[in-house]
Amino acid sequence: MEILVTNDDGVQAPGLLALAQEMRKLGTVTVFAPDRNWSASGHVKTMDRPLRVRETTLADGTTAYSSDGAPSDCVALPLLGLLEKKFDLVVSGINPNANIGHDVTYSGTVTAAMEAVIDGIRGIAVSLDSPERFKGPLDYSTAAIVARRVAKMVIKDGLPDGVVLNVNVPYLKKDELKGYMITRQGLRVYRDALDARLDPRGKPYYWIGGESPTGVEEEGTDFGALKAGYVSITPLQLDLTHYKAMDVLKKWKL
Amino acid sequence: MEILVTNDDGVQAPGLLALAQEMRKLGTVTVFAPDRNWSASGHVKTMDRPLRVRETTLADGTTAYSSDGAPSDCVALPLLGLLEKKFDLVVSGINPNANIGHDVTYSGTVTAAMEAVIDGIRGIAVSLDSPERFKGPLDYSTAAIVARRVAKMVIKDGLPDGVVLNVNVPYLKKDELKGYMITRQGLRVYRDALDARLDPRGKPYYWIGGESPTGVEEEGTDFGALKAGYVSITPLQLDLTHYKAMDVLKKWKL
Repeated sequence: MEILVTNDDGVQAPGLLALAQEMRKLGTVTVFAPDRNWSASGHVKTMDRPLRVRETTLADGTTAYSSDGAPSDCVALPLLGLLEKKFDLVVSGINPNANIGHDVTYSGTVTAAMEAVIDGIRGIAVSLDSPERFKGPLDYSTAAIVARRVAKMVIKDGLPDGVVLNVNVPYLKKDELKGYMITRQGLRVYRDALDARLDPRGKPYYWIGGESPTGVEEEGTDFGALKAGYVSITPLQLDLTHYKAMDVLKKWKL
Repeated sequence: MEILVTNDDGVQAPGLLALAQEMRKLGTVTVFAPDRNWSASGHVKTMDRPLRVRETTLADGTTAYSSDGAPSDCVALPLLGLLEKKFDLVVSGINPNANIGHDVTYSGTVTAAMEAVIDGIRGIAVSLDSPERFKGPLDYSTAAIVARRVAKMVIKDGLPDGVVLNVNVPYLKKDELKGYMITRQGLRVYRDALDARLDPRGKPYYWIGGESPTGVEEEGTDFGALKAGYVSITPLQLDLTHYKAMDVLKKWKL
């Protein structure tokens, strides 16, 4: 079992190390991740510039690869044969914040797993629903164990074609977890606000600020599962067609 | 009718101008676009740095705004009130290449329209299926007229909630168009290949190269419609849940 581990927070992020260490219990792990943080970067394919790849060492002394490309580039490069080996599974994470609701379209963690599925490899994204504005080092141990259990199921039973697994783990100790829930993507309420400021030279600049997004707490959704203390596993698809809307639009007289 | 026009190719791209000029026939147009090319950039929300906004002039002498943010930032900023007005519709494009199949997850053009829908505004993405490796200036006139007709329908009849319209126009003269087809997202076949080179100092670097992607020519898909000379209109959704896969996963013993 050849497993590629990546993330969108950069190769030295603690969530990546925790994930890689657990994945090693399931097979041979290659770590290939961006050399910097690419959070909220979306699904990027870098074609306008060449990419560099470096060998580096993780905090536990193991070897990893980093690149100056985006998370999806860090999946594409090894899947295109850069390391002269084939992979069976791509696991992305562990993101220090939940990726739920509309977050999935922005999320570098999720789009790295999407890239794997587009390239015909199974892909899992793992995120930790850490408390808002948490200070100090996060404990990724529960999320890493959950990631291993989910990956083990994927290795054993496979996944329906074209499915990307989006896994979100509550910030709880392992024995506090209520269990696992297969969920649908919920609704995210963004509370972005424009924060206009003046620079030292009197010229305006703008932050996209505001409060953290909240979720609509509904049963059966990713957000609902997390709130209730369950691991949320949402199968995502790459076919974005809104089939029901097709019938409405077919009545248009263009 | 307040219409926001944006793109992912940069504020001075000819496709943006062609689109803005046609949209002016439907209402008041504000152009707000990135100050550089962001193709294949995905859905980005810039939160780690502040954004600058500049007033600029398009080739036809009209005023436009540009920002150093991504396409979705260029939608978020005005929708968050930067220009002290409200918008009814966001139209993104005209992209010089088709955005079909899995392209939609990478496409800055499409994700700008997605950002509008996440923020509760109607969003349309418009792309031109120009011939491969076409040299010289593209003729955006047909695509711009198509964009106006589609936008007019959206203004008149609305759109189902949460739907982003992804419009792709064949590279044909207006009277050569076969008509309009409501389509589903097709399958895209990427033919990326790793192109490893050595720099002048003997160090390796890597291009994501290879041939242009092709599509699986199937009836009812975006790619199929374009091949047959039809405008393709695909309703996209922001709920990426693979509902059928949920039943499969619910049988997992985790």
